[in-house]
Amino acid sequence: MYLATIRLGNTTRAVKRIEKDGQSQLVDLGYADVRALLDDPDGLAKAAAVTDGTAYATDTADFAPPILDPEKVVCVAHNYGEHFKFLGLSVPEHPRLSTKFSSSLIGPNDPIVTPADAHALDAAVELTIVIGKSVRHADDAEAAAAIAGFTVMNDVADRSVAFETDEWALGDVWDRSTPMGPYVVTPDELPGGLKPQVNLSTTIDDTERQSGHSTDLHFDPVHVVRRVSRFMQLSPGDVIATGSPVTPGHRHGADGHLKAGQVVVAAIEGIGECRNTVVAS
Amino acid sequence: MYLATIRLGNTTRAVKRIEKDGQSQLVDLGYADVRALLDDPDGLAKAAAVTDGTAYATDTADFAPPILDPEKVVCVAHNYGEHFKFLGLSVPEHPRLSTKFSSSLIGPNDPIVTPADAHALDAAVELTIVIGKSVRHADDAEAAAAIAGFTVMNDVADRSVAFETDEWALGDVWDRSTPMGPYVVTPDELPGGLKPQVNLSTTIDDTERQSGHSTDLHFDPVHVVRRVSRFMQLSPGDVIATGSPVTPGHRHGADGHLKAGQVVVAAIEGIGECRNTVVAS
Repeated sequence: MYLATIRLGNTTRAVKRIEKDGQSQLVDLGYADVRALLDDPDGLAKAAAVTDGTAYATDTADFAPPILDPEKVVCVAHNYGEHFKFLGLSVPEHPRLSTKFSSSLIGPNDPIVTPADAHALDAAVELTIVIGKSVRHADDAEAAAAIAGFTVMNDVADRSVAFETDEWALGDVWDRSTPMGPYVVTPDELPGGLKPQVNLSTTIDDTERQSGHSTDLHFDPVHVVRRVSRFMQLSPGDVIATGSPVTPGHRHGADGHLKAGQVVVAAIEGIGECRNTVVAS
Repeated sequence: MYLATIRLGNTTRAVKRIEKDGQSQLVDLGYADVRALLDDPDGLAKAAAVTDGTAYATDTADFAPPILDPEKVVCVAHNYGEHFKFLGLSVPEHPRLSTKFSSSLIGPNDPIVTPADAHALDAAVELTIVIGKSVRHADDAEAAAAIAGFTVMNDVADRSVAFETDEWALGDVWDRSTPMGPYVVTPDELPGGLKPQVNLSTTIDDTERQSGHSTDLHFDPVHVVRRVSRFMQLSPGDVIATGSPVTPGHRHGADGHLKAGQVVVAAIEGIGECRNTVVAS
């Protein structure tokens, strides 16, 4: 299933993408967002059973972040083999984790507003786990069962804050800086299932600036969920970004940083893409 | 004013501490918690006008965190002159910030449950700002106006996670590890007002293990609010812990770490104290 949350005037609706009469449509699932759907223990089963109903055209839909207001947003800092190698980092025993506030999230096509005093905005496409069941101190089986699906995050970070002032975590928490969505894709739709085998890429103004393949992930999604659940209860709608291949800023320096007027596309094969215009604040 | 949130059965109530008939009482203010009071633009003025009403005994009250579920919890990593000196750190241009999820908060007298695999739990008494007005990109005057008052946080962190695995931020985000409260104290009650001049201390089983004075703060509360508001909108009920004197674990090593059965008291003169028993999970 491909689930999303779309905006309709002042409200939002959880939808499922279907093909009908040769057209891609979004069928209303009766919830305000995908988090509300996941909060219903029968939500995924009910969504799977939906074949018809109020529908909206996919190509003109206004996508919100699929989870409007996750209780927790967790990010793995480094996870790709080539990223460790590029940065000269040894591979840690456990994933290095950080957190974001949900106020940093925007929809997959919303403008990325450059903070006035951010000087080195770097994009980062990340395969992102969406939690479907409450879990704490999970073993592998519980962690696997807690994964509802995957979405795309462009984990935009300000390297000027991160490196110039040692405020590492803060480069990541700018309000409204992080596109997510449009779809939450259930593992059955993906090659590799809970260990998706998919290409990831970021283009800036149609030039590829970042690419990788999820088989290069050192800590797979089940491992990451197990680890995070050691520290905190994970709840339906929580999201965990699993890290990024070498970022445009790391690979291309200032040339890879986002500038007002550019269009940045963070795409994951079989899942979807965030396509955002960068605007000055 | 001394504001708090107390538990009454399955509900909670925002209260103000008053002296009546020689007794300390907590008068009901008509809100579910101090965040709901601060969300009301007239909340503080209304609370100031309350002199009577449904009251509860202070000494038997069950205190919740004054803000039950802050949207944002931000922490300054190092801020005390003696802390920089002790750790051999140069003083940064800006405060180094990290974030917590609100699920890490507990009431000021709730048990601190030691995570099974945390091996070096360190206490840290912190003067903690409570935000009363929405603010973004604040100047000094706006930052000052955004501060509703101060509370006490014992920013318990697991140094084994922080230092052994380089998961610096994560040592701070264990679910239900961080006592806060009991009172939100308005600046007019404190010597120094918005730059409180107060002693801070932590005792473990009645032995003092941490002490300092808030005049040793390098970045004062107004500076901290101004800086944090550069990154994110601050909203009523958000809390910012301003850092800690040298912690018991830093000063006393393993001897300073919390162990099951101990009672830890984090106190700030004129504001209040968190008094918590450490229990094994």
